[in-house]
Amino acid sequence: MITDKYNREDFKTGGYIGVAQINPIAGNFEYNSKKIAENIKYAEDLNLDMVVFPELSIIGFPIWDMIKRYPFLAEENLKWLNGLAKITKNTAALVGFVEKSGGEYVNSAAVLRNGKIEFISRKGINDIYKLNGTNYGICIGEIADSDSDVIINIASIPSREGKSYMLTNLLKERASEYKKPIICVNQVGSIDNFSYDGSSTGVDAKGKIFARAKSFEEDFIVLNPKTSCGEIEPIYENISEKNTEFNPEYKDDLERTYKTIIQGIKDYFSKCGLKRAVLGLSGGLDSSVCAVLLTDALGRENVAGISMPSKITSSESKSDAKELAENLGIKFAECPIKSVFDTTSETLLPLFDEMEQAWTDRYKKSYTPDNIQARARATYLWCISNEFPLCIPIATSDKSESYMGYATINGDMSGGYAPIADVTKTKLFALARWMNKNRAQKNVIPQSVILKKPGAELAINPKTGKTLCAEEALMPYEFLDEVIFRIENKGENYQTMLNSEFYYEKKCNISKDQKKEWLDKFFSRMSGALYKWSIAVPSVIVDSYSINKAEYCQPVTSGRVNYKGLSDEEISSVLESI
Amino acid sequence: MITDKYNREDFKTGGYIGVAQINPIAGNFEYNSKKIAENIKYAEDLNLDMVVFPELSIIGFPIWDMIKRYPFLAEENLKWLNGLAKITKNTAALVGFVEKSGGEYVNSAAVLRNGKIEFISRKGINDIYKLNGTNYGICIGEIADSDSDVIINIASIPSREGKSYMLTNLLKERASEYKKPIICVNQVGSIDNFSYDGSSTGVDAKGKIFARAKSFEEDFIVLNPKTSCGEIEPIYENISEKNTEFNPEYKDDLERTYKTIIQGIKDYFSKCGLKRAVLGLSGGLDSSVCAVLLTDALGRENVAGISMPSKITSSESKSDAKELAENLGIKFAECPIKSVFDTTSETLLPLFDEMEQAWTDRYKKSYTPDNIQARARATYLWCISNEFPLCIPIATSDKSESYMGYATINGDMSGGYAPIADVTKTKLFALARWMNKNRAQKNVIPQSVILKKPGAELAINPKTGKTLCAEEALMPYEFLDEVIFRIENKGENYQTMLNSEFYYEKKCNISKDQKKEWLDKFFSRMSGALYKWSIAVPSVIVDSYSINKAEYCQPVTSGRVNYKGLSDEEISSVLESI
Repeated sequence: MITDKYNREDFKTGGYIGVAQINPIAGNFEYNSKKIAENIKYAEDLNLDMVVFPELSIIGFPIWDMIKRYPFLAEENLKWLNGLAKITKNTAALVGFVEKSGGEYVNSAAVLRNGKIEFISRKGINDIYKLNGTNYGICIGEIADSDSDVIINIASIPSREGKSYMLTNLLKERASEYKKPIICVNQVGSIDNFSYDGSSTGVDAKGKIFARAKSFEEDFIVLNPKTSCGEIEPIYENISEKNTEFNPEYKDDLERTYKTIIQGIKDYFSKCGLKRAVLGLSGGLDSSVCAVLLTDALGRENVAGISMPSKITSSESKSDAKELAENLGIKFAECPIKSVFDTTSETLLPLFDEMEQAWTDRYKKSYTPDNIQARARATYLWCISNEFPLCIPIATSDKSESYMGYATINGDMSGGYAPIADVTKTKLFALARWMNKNRAQKNVIPQSVILKKPGAELAINPKTGKTLCAEEALMPYEFLDEVIFRIENKGENYQTMLNSEFYYEKKCNISKDQKKEWLDKFFSRMSGALYKWSIAVPSVIVDSYSINKAEYCQPVTSGRVNYKGLSDEEISSVLESI
Repeated sequence: MITDKYNREDFKTGGYIGVAQINPIAGNFEYNSKKIAENIKYAEDLNLDMVVFPELSIIGFPIWDMIKRYPFLAEENLKWLNGLAKITKNTAALVGFVEKSGGEYVNSAAVLRNGKIEFISRKGINDIYKLNGTNYGICIGEIADSDSDVIINIASIPSREGKSYMLTNLLKERASEYKKPIICVNQVGSIDNFSYDGSSTGVDAKGKIFARAKSFEEDFIVLNPKTSCGEIEPIYENISEKNTEFNPEYKDDLERTYKTIIQGIKDYFSKCGLKRAVLGLSGGLDSSVCAVLLTDALGRENVAGISMPSKITSSESKSDAKELAENLGIKFAECPIKSVFDTTSETLLPLFDEMEQAWTDRYKKSYTPDNIQARARATYLWCISNEFPLCIPIATSDKSESYMGYATINGDMSGGYAPIADVTKTKLFALARWMNKNRAQKNVIPQSVILKKPGAELAINPKTGKTLCAEEALMPYEFLDEVIFRIENKGENYQTMLNSEFYYEKKCNISKDQKKEWLDKFFSRMSGALYKWSIAVPSVIVDSYSINKAEYCQPVTSGRVNYKGLSDEEISSVLESI
């Protein structure tokens, strides 16, 4: 992370600040403090006035309940802060830490200099630190004005659709409004579900960006807020506003989506001490996209794709899976599930008969055979992870499926990590096309994978005699994903959606009854999916809002919410009848 | 819930208040409002001055992010509040609801009377409502004084060890201090992980309890705060302070533990529209205790226990499982897992060989065979739940195992509900003995289940040639559970524990090295278990503090926390070496 692009000679006029955009591990004081120490020494070598680290840099963001449960961690972080203070000399170091103040634990930042803690600022207070004739207004999280010459804002802001655009504009506006430069230092790297994108930025008093660190990478940049001296790293190809209308092309958000997930995978594995991933390759879109992302994040030598065909699996699916693995250069193996499927099904027959004596209302038709297939596959993957060091299986289900509860418990829902759990099906199609076009190696995902209709290949549709495709079981993905878009981005309800025109309606002619049927199905299936959300495996948040447990929580027992609502008259008639 | 113990004639002198201790379903306005309406009409029939409902009674507590995500639910709750107002006459009804105030959603309570909303109080404000010459100070959640004659506190307080004792004392103290009666109306019933115990209480101005509703049951009681008129229902046999030292007898907390779990199971099933549970009966403690609890909560006709022996399963385990099922009168079936185990293992051999070509560092010894057994069993249970209506499988793992990560993913960790996930092994032993003694039918759990050493019967201990018992793989449960007790109840760290004398140390002579080894093992295994906590299935919180997701969250990637910490000298030497 320490670069060789700077020379001590360049900074002798003073007023230069180092931005140390580090990637911490939550709770790992030794790892984080060593990283901080390295940067402090480098800044000292460069003779900088100050070096600034992100919010809570000693402990890493987010910490959730760690301190509440293990109060000794707060004491431990103070010890490391004191340790860091001791190694400082003339260059001031602004380091985020957890302060114990009046029985409470506070999000604070300390300036370490000349071997001691020279100054402390708390979140929401925005104190001023004077150094070499300049007043630095220190604010944590929120940007706020103060009687300062320069504002230093330390933050931890996860990547979201349109977030960079929004934040950049906010910085520009505030700097112009306050008529002073702002330096915003953001965390980079991923911790569990949050992927922080870095892109620490310096904006001058007129609102012009004069310095920016890399995005999705650790970086060290030197800038001078008074002379607006610094360099600007590009963020990504397109940095644009959040979409306000659903569009299945997602055109300005695919590179960010890709980078957010890659960092999510990479850091989850490295921070958990993992190395390898094994996934089922069905020849379908979800597992294909996962395979590419895992290869890019972990290296092809650390990824294995297993084709586990059943009697329903088409020969095309088998060859697509193999072709993809060969294109990527990952390990590929085949292991049919027929014998486990047959043995399980056979031994279940007498058990079901026995059970039917007690519970006489056995279903005429059940999902049992579909689920045995999905569970047999998951068992194989987990067994591989039991057999080979530092290896976990991958849950390949996507966001559209999660909303619909259209994934099997202990089957494709199961795994050690879920790379695309916050990506809808239409966005996965767009991402697949984007990766085929933009990765150094073009078209690794076979065209037939992108062209065929998604389906789990677990059952035959009695109407067509062919394998049941997902849109037959659910509804068109372009419709389904717009419902998700409207819930997550607009907080719309059933009635509003019924009265708005959907993208899919513009494209295809559908009746109001058809639309109503799909909306009913959506809300009914979503209610039943709450339990599955509660046991979803770790994944990275990609979109503006998600059903990831780290940001959304709804009681499973609330499944009987009436998403349609009742009118005043209906309510009165219910209550008056009592 | 409406009782027949009251007569309108008794209340004609005025000043009587009805306490409607209801059990709501989160988000189900129609269900909750009908219940409220029923109680309002009953209170009106009895000619009471007022009827009081618990905190947020229209929507049900807790609501978590429901309103944030679906803002239309807030509007919907207002519609129902207005609908309820319309049915009121002379009796005032104090109803908790979500108020929209200045763009924010507020926890509020409204007084409905004579067809309209007459008064609104917000959490933290403590306004006074005047009725028939009396000033009622309305406070939500926290008890607070105001310029009132009577304090009405509406709350939703989940059951915990020692909580009833603590709350009762708090009410007594505050009433004496403020020199006025307090009526505390608490929610009853369970929503997801929280089991609310009701026990709504009236305390007079001298701090004496004069009225109390039932615990763990819906109830309607009438009281008069001015004349201290009311009836007192018993809570449970023992209501005592929280234990400050670990003791494996748990003697004053077993009835509460039993009732908390029974209500948790009952309400999870009924509120999710479920009816039946199927569980694996191993003949061990965990599944035996679960079977009894499920039978008591759901009825024996709705519980099925499946014995799924492997070649390691002892004949004693098989007969214990059968005896328990017969004692309980639940459905019992046997389904050996040998053929699925063999087929899975055989088909994995060539796959592992193939994989070894890429990943040459395959483990010499793995948990694969153990885990195939646990996963085959879970597959059988999930298939039964696929085949029979309203049936879910039960995850039988306990709290001691959760801390140690000593349960199999997609195996015994898996299920639709986990009744004992917040109960440690030593408490389960105590609970088993308590149930054998205190249930109407005595000794349903065979003595041998309680006497034998717990073990998953998944592997043979090479040292003894017998099945590996859990304490050999981990550490003595009396030691393990005390570590958990000290973390959860005292926030103690590694060093403090090392220097304190444990119950197990008093009982058995162990060396400091042995203790250190166990503590090291505990913290190391706990770090590795964080992922498993993140995918734990819904369960009821029983103890003072837990690792249930509803109340505790730690990043999985924080697994490398150094729970031992370093000294100042060690820290300096790490940082100075950079």
